[in-house]
Amino acid sequence: MIKIIGFDADDTLWHNESIFDRVQQRYRDLLARYHPADVVDRVLFATEMRNLPHYGYGVKGFMLSTVETAIELTKGAISAQEIREIITLGQEMLAHPVELLPGVAELVPALARDYRLLLITKGELHHQEHKIAASGLAPHFSAIEILSEKDGATYERVLRRHGVAVGEFVMVGNSLRSDILPVLELGGAGVHIPYHITWQHEHVEEPPRNHARFRRVDNLAALPPLLPAL
Amino acid sequence: MIKIIGFDADDTLWHNESIFDRVQQRYRDLLARYHPADVVDRVLFATEMRNLPHYGYGVKGFMLSTVETAIELTKGAISAQEIREIITLGQEMLAHPVELLPGVAELVPALARDYRLLLITKGELHHQEHKIAASGLAPHFSAIEILSEKDGATYERVLRRHGVAVGEFVMVGNSLRSDILPVLELGGAGVHIPYHITWQHEHVEEPPRNHARFRRVDNLAALPPLLPAL
Repeated sequence: MIKIIGFDADDTLWHNESIFDRVQQRYRDLLARYHPADVVDRVLFATEMRNLPHYGYGVKGFMLSTVETAIELTKGAISAQEIREIITLGQEMLAHPVELLPGVAELVPALARDYRLLLITKGELHHQEHKIAASGLAPHFSAIEILSEKDGATYERVLRRHGVAVGEFVMVGNSLRSDILPVLELGGAGVHIPYHITWQHEHVEEPPRNHARFRRVDNLAALPPLLPAL
Repeated sequence: MIKIIGFDADDTLWHNESIFDRVQQRYRDLLARYHPADVVDRVLFATEMRNLPHYGYGVKGFMLSTVETAIELTKGAISAQEIREIITLGQEMLAHPVELLPGVAELVPALARDYRLLLITKGELHHQEHKIAASGLAPHFSAIEILSEKDGATYERVLRRHGVAVGEFVMVGNSLRSDILPVLELGGAGVHIPYHITWQHEHVEEPPRNHARFRRVDNLAALPPLLPAL
């Protein structure tokens, strides 16, 4: 019986990937006279993956990778002024207001009355803390965990730290890879709420099949009635 | 009577500011044909402070500020190739091996036999975790806290989370501003071990005077004999 709900944050409680996506469109436009969009996307993603072990997740690493990729793709022909524009794109992302997903502002407080809620997110400490504060949702969570990676080992550590029995735990999030699969593996439950865009890095081909503790729903409003049966 | 020791990490357990300093020297050299070193330093620091609310602490924010400052200081005349070099400088910082300060490798395990040790550091989650893992010191700490800021409120939260009575707590670190003053304010003890370079942002003019729970020592070896009297 579920007593504790873990919530992912980006693209589960508020919009995130759509902000990256809009910035990436402006980035493609800026480089359009050098390369078609698909080449820009491919080389940027390769740069991000190469840098991930050094930068970790988050906007600042993305910004550094966009600058590096622009220099590489233009063979150094890009101007300093254009690089300044690329940095400004990233700074706008960091300053972007937090926009809650539909239903979140009502459902999170309602769920907090019946369940213990944990916020479990990955990324940059400073930016995640800023977004959590700006969301106004922090008072509804009994604990907030900002992790550098969300995998079996980090979930196990978080659940142990908060004295959570995995049988009583469900994780809710938009990423099969980071929110659902590692928790199912540990014996917990997982509710997948896809966002309309998934970052290529988080993409998983196949959702779990016929797993008793897995559900997929379209939006957060569908979550509460599912919980008693998980 | 002290039972729990909190350790800062950068410039307390391992070298950090000296790595920034060497990179900043190479950065000054790169911009030397545009501006003298003191101008470069002043404008870079102003950029870092302007960006701090958006970037937080850490190498990635520093990297972004060095790129932005270089464009500003050269009025856009800097080449993409030179910007690539600036990014490489930062990437070298992130990949730099962790070099423990003298005595740390012996004294931390020795202290862990008699005291409960907490590692309390601020900065970027990913990079700090990487350095903690590379240091080999993690097994000696009962808990590791990576914070976005070290002030009275965050120390209070950490001490509460770990059930630490402030009267039994001493914080050891190189920054009066981040390691010592907020802990003394809460009623804890503080041992300041200055590093030979202090980042301007962490600089405090006046150390506490005649404070019964404050000490300043030259190196970590002087810490253990002080503890019974704190």
